Amino acid sequence: MSDQIKYVLDEENIPKSWYNLTADFPTPMPPVLHPGTHQPVGPSDLEPLFPMELILQEVATERYIEIPEPVRDVFRMWRPAPLIRARRLEQALGTPAKIYFKYEGVSPAGSHKPNTAVPQAWYNKQAGIKKLSTETGAGQWGSSLAFAGSLFGLDVLVFQVRVSYDQKPYRRALMETYGARCIASPSTETDSGRAILAKTPNSPGSLGIAISEAVEVAAKNPDIKYALGSVLNHVMLHQTIIGEEAIKQCEMAGDDPDVIIGCAGGGSNFAGLAFPFLGLQLRGGRKRRIIAVEPAACPTLTRGTYAYDFGDTAHLTPLVKMHTLGSTFMPPGFHAGGLRYHGMSGMVSHAYELGLIEARAYQQVGCFEAGVQFARTEGIVPAPESTHAVRCAIDEALRCKEEGKSETILFNLSGHGHFDMQAYINYFEGKLVDQDYDEADLATALAGLPAVAA
Amino acid sequence: MSDQIKYVLDEENIPKSWYNLTADFPTPMPPVLHPGTHQPVGPSDLEPLFPMELILQEVATERYIEIPEPVRDVFRMWRPAPLIRARRLEQALGTPAKIYFKYEGVSPAGSHKPNTAVPQAWYNKQAGIKKLSTETGAGQWGSSLAFAGSLFGLDVLVFQVRVSYDQKPYRRALMETYGARCIASPSTETDSGRAILAKTPNSPGSLGIAISEAVEVAAKNPDIKYALGSVLNHVMLHQTIIGEEAIKQCEMAGDDPDVIIGCAGGGSNFAGLAFPFLGLQLRGGRKRRIIAVEPAACPTLTRGTYAYDFGDTAHLTPLVKMHTLGSTFMPPGFHAGGLRYHGMSGMVSHAYELGLIEARAYQQVGCFEAGVQFARTEGIVPAPESTHAVRCAIDEALRCKEEGKSETILFNLSGHGHFDMQAYINYFEGKLVDQDYDEADLATALAGLPAVAA
Repeated sequence: MSDQIKYVLDEENIPKSWYNLTADFPTPMPPVLHPGTHQPVGPSDLEPLFPMELILQEVATERYIEIPEPVRDVFRMWRPAPLIRARRLEQALGTPAKIYFKYEGVSPAGSHKPNTAVPQAWYNKQAGIKKLSTETGAGQWGSSLAFAGSLFGLDVLVFQVRVSYDQKPYRRALMETYGARCIASPSTETDSGRAILAKTPNSPGSLGIAISEAVEVAAKNPDIKYALGSVLNHVMLHQTIIGEEAIKQCEMAGDDPDVIIGCAGGGSNFAGLAFPFLGLQLRGGRKRRIIAVEPAACPTLTRGTYAYDFGDTAHLTPLVKMHTLGSTFMPPGFHAGGLRYHGMSGMVSHAYELGLIEARAYQQVGCFEAGVQFARTEGIVPAPESTHAVRCAIDEALRCKEEGKSETILFNLSGHGHFDMQAYINYFEGKLVDQDYDEADLATALAGLPAVAA
Repeated sequence: MSDQIKYVLDEENIPKSWYNLTADFPTPMPPVLHPGTHQPVGPSDLEPLFPMELILQEVATERYIEIPEPVRDVFRMWRPAPLIRARRLEQALGTPAKIYFKYEGVSPAGSHKPNTAVPQAWYNKQAGIKKLSTETGAGQWGSSLAFAGSLFGLDVLVFQVRVSYDQKPYRRALMETYGARCIASPSTETDSGRAILAKTPNSPGSLGIAISEAVEVAAKNPDIKYALGSVLNHVMLHQTIIGEEAIKQCEMAGDDPDVIIGCAGGGSNFAGLAFPFLGLQLRGGRKRRIIAVEPAACPTLTRGTYAYDFGDTAHLTPLVKMHTLGSTFMPPGFHAGGLRYHGMSGMVSHAYELGLIEARAYQQVGCFEAGVQFARTEGIVPAPESTHAVRCAIDEALRCKEEGKSETILFNLSGHGHFDMQAYINYFEGKLVDQDYDEADLATALAGLPAVAA
């Protein structure tokens, strides 16, 4: 074991391939179904929305897929991301455990999201696309795609949920600094937006509505494609660069994680860190505990059902078999906007069904408490989403203390909280409370799942 | 020349010593004078405010001063800071010049300020001090001292200029996340604050008033010392870690800068990058162009006088010979709050008088234009202060293009702008305008300089 704090790889050690867990799953994933016919979708069904290279990645079964050189060249701006030993946090906890975190907040947009925004922008550019449309809630994804678009000369149109557009002007400013155009959703620029506004002129918007607007714009214009920042298989694939780097960095540190932790909304930062380690296990390596942490107010894995469901509230998307709370489920307004999604990546759900990963749900006040302890020991203020992983890492380290075990804990610090300080203000002012979802709403949402023959 | 983008040194390459330019100045610096007697101050005059180790560094003449191991250990959290080749910016400009920047925004607080906050907190802790008081305007310094205090278990009291306290709640939240207490200045907690409030109950505050409050608290309580984030010799000393690293990194890159650029308010990030290179020159190395960039609305070097002056508006500090606009000078309210200071570091001023460095003043709109171009090519949104260095680097690169010269340009990107997005919003909305200072105000301020016998 070395005595370093940071494990930083050279640029030539940026992985040359993404890792595809599909190749190593012991049983294949259920197919994605057409929303009308309930038959497996083919590449042509997805063509209006995505360029063919991404569609092929969505259904790929090869274990490794090469990262294009121009994409790796952009990654050199901030990757390899550091693996950091949280020695001061360990000392503050008095734990015999070793705590490492992979820090993805070093990216220009401040989170792991550019790991997929850059290749998505690149493949679209290669396909002759001029413009991308997308939605954003918390703003991490919108600013990442805006950044990627600026590098490849693509116009980026971001439908930002109205309430976020109004309450987070600095996130919007970041997107505009990168040259993107932000539109408050619901907007008058699409049929779906106008339909909502006709009924509810003061609608605060929702991710579901914003997705509908972004998808509509892409579906109606051959020069515009749609980009999604989580959930889909190709997004999980792109994020595996995190875990591929972390495997090398753990070797540098002379250490091997016993517990691997990531927060999970759509599942991409969790999958990015965990899947390469899980692949090692499925190919004969040792078993590690792998924990997905979700908000108690939106507990997709711990309380949802494994079933076919729509990815959006307007039911425009294909049907994916996943852990879901039902596409009409309305989580309460907690602060980790990036974790407020009714469903979960099909790949993460499949791994959970196979018993390959654990899941845990946390209330937000304890997460912010962990975030503040982390900031005061390690200096970095975590994004509200990432505080869920911090909370779990601290709890595991305290368990090690109780049990007198010196396990090695690795978690993904998916982003910094520089654009989320209002949540910390609310926490300090005691305005942040734990929140439960509405049981009746959940029951209704689950009862409304589409009937799909087995 | 290598083909890398980032030049990242290992932790063991964090410099073991700070470089003291005083040792190599061809003529000695003028002494600091007591405000009452106009005689050179001795260490005991400064003891109520600073611990002895920092006072000794203030007057030190040795070329190298050892960095304590516990301070280096904290630096390992983010240092060595990367040297980055701005290839995409070079391409966008079509320049034959090579542009490198040293990126100090990787620190937890987001700027170069922790380079001095950490040793200042450490020396105070060693001296048995329990609490530090300071002032902050833009907030970079206050959050850096708050961060450093949290690591060493020191209480930190920050007098934040009222208008900044009200307008920048996220900066305040960052300081509070690190455990500091922020007080809007003028406050009812000090005589000087109460005196102001009695006269002007709605006073927006000023850096001068906040300094008076922070100094008063320290002067009246033996357990509390005062900490300053720029201007003083020991602050310049601590920042030389930037340039010491950059010299090694330029060697890694196989390149040697012809032009070195930093923005200058009190002078510390500029000095931090430039002084080690200047030392090489003064010890027989080659001459490089070294440019300090200041705001046209507060042009201390380009329009100020070299004279003895007070560091604060309330005239509590010793007299320092420096480039000054006069301590009563009121710059207009432009956006780079970190550059709104009437004076300049005595060391930087001395170097300027000796003809060792150049100075240049820029208006703010062109600086933000450069900041946006930088963000769209290099991904990082610069702090408003740092955009001055970016503007100058771009202008030098465009000069190289005109002259067909492939010079190497190195600038200090002293911090990111994540907590300054309102300035970018104003820029995009066309509300940002170039601003000139009031000539009559400058004349009055200069006429009011203290009369000090030569």
